[in-house]
Amino acid sequence: MSSGRHLAKGSGTPDVPADGILRLYSMRFCPFAQRVHLVLDAKQIPYHSIYINLTEKPDWLFEKNPQGKVPALELVREPGPPVLTESLLICEYLDEQYPLRPLYPRDPLKKVQEKLLIERFGAVLGAFFKASDGGELEPFWSGLDIYEQELSRRGTLFFGGEQTGILDYMIWPWCERLELLKLQRGEDYNYDEQRFPHLTEWLKRMKRDAAVMAFYMEAEVQAEFLRTRSAGKPNYNLLVKDA
Amino acid sequence: MSSGRHLAKGSGTPDVPADGILRLYSMRFCPFAQRVHLVLDAKQIPYHSIYINLTEKPDWLFEKNPQGKVPALELVREPGPPVLTESLLICEYLDEQYPLRPLYPRDPLKKVQEKLLIERFGAVLGAFFKASDGGELEPFWSGLDIYEQELSRRGTLFFGGEQTGILDYMIWPWCERLELLKLQRGEDYNYDEQRFPHLTEWLKRMKRDAAVMAFYMEAEVQAEFLRTRSAGKPNYNLLVKDA
Repeated sequence: MSSGRHLAKGSGTPDVPADGILRLYSMRFCPFAQRVHLVLDAKQIPYHSIYINLTEKPDWLFEKNPQGKVPALELVREPGPPVLTESLLICEYLDEQYPLRPLYPRDPLKKVQEKLLIERFGAVLGAFFKASDGGELEPFWSGLDIYEQELSRRGTLFFGGEQTGILDYMIWPWCERLELLKLQRGEDYNYDEQRFPHLTEWLKRMKRDAAVMAFYMEAEVQAEFLRTRSAGKPNYNLLVKDA
Repeated sequence: MSSGRHLAKGSGTPDVPADGILRLYSMRFCPFAQRVHLVLDAKQIPYHSIYINLTEKPDWLFEKNPQGKVPALELVREPGPPVLTESLLICEYLDEQYPLRPLYPRDPLKKVQEKLLIERFGAVLGAFFKASDGGELEPFWSGLDIYEQELSRRGTLFFGGEQTGILDYMIWPWCERLELLKLQRGEDYNYDEQRFPHLTEWLKRMKRDAAVMAFYMEAEVQAEFLRTRSAGKPNYNLLVKDA
């Protein structure tokens, strides 16, 4: 199913078996899509990945999902079938629909506090994109300060406690890209282990997490994709062996 | 408690009784804050309203809530006490913490579909603000088409069914402001009852809803506030009798 090849305009409807298994429309280099892969993998929910060339989207994608967005999750067993969008909402749905290995806290107060920290990460990831684009690094580090303090305050291995939880996975895609930032910025790169002692240990732990490992991508590959995209010819199929 | 006067820089910490009742930091003309008032009123949860002058925020507000945002809900009975922000997250918390008169569907699929419709309203309210600012009206009407179709498809009195639900309240503040738009646009105003037959009836029903009535504001008052704000001297206390 998932050779990893990104389907483009002109491609036929993907040849996915009618086996009742969830279908995730995704893009291999998209950090928002990565959130959904992480949650599906962490909860061990089976799914088919269907990768999309976002520059030249296939026509059939708009039939599934008129907004043409990814990530999008097709619930093939439900009448319709419905196609869900928005990474955070998809992840919330998955955690409610598949209650094994819960990722959100059950307590309404703890849950909303976790969502507020995820919401605030919106500004941090914005700062990441600017830093990755040659802008200032400090706004990104200042954004991470909140999560360093939070992890220190919790005194746990992960934000989720002794195991990963929703906050770990929702912020991970940009944390994984710290190495991309290092590669892009060269000598400018000034991640400070003294400033982020808890996050530094957390990063090491997260890299050993099974769901993180299942979708991990080397910084060199990410950088190469961004290079092809800047050149106006994004090579979505960098990871496809026969591409 | 709520004389409706907006507290400004230099004001002392508000004189609220230590009665364990929720405190909502709000602004009377803010549609996002209105969402939280609607949910609290619909669920008949007691609360104190503390209105804030957003142009000259009181110093003590930043002690409660370092981001200085409204709406913000202070959970005075919880240790901390925690202060929640983000209108949608506050409303979700309230619905989970106070399960009587539920506003969100219980079924995870129905719930996420409702959240997606609330999320999509983000673009519609953006179009409202532009139209209210003298921009094109059509993008706002196109945004409303989705909700007209949805109400027609559901065939119910409200989005929530035979009674109001979360989607009704989350989109209401901008629907209430249709009359403001009419006032602002004069002859340009081209709301089309033929185009929005279901929404037209829904608007009438919503105006008779107890929670809507409790916070309803005449278009003339809203317009007057916006005039004072455009003139650089927002009069937050327009509704305060002794102001």
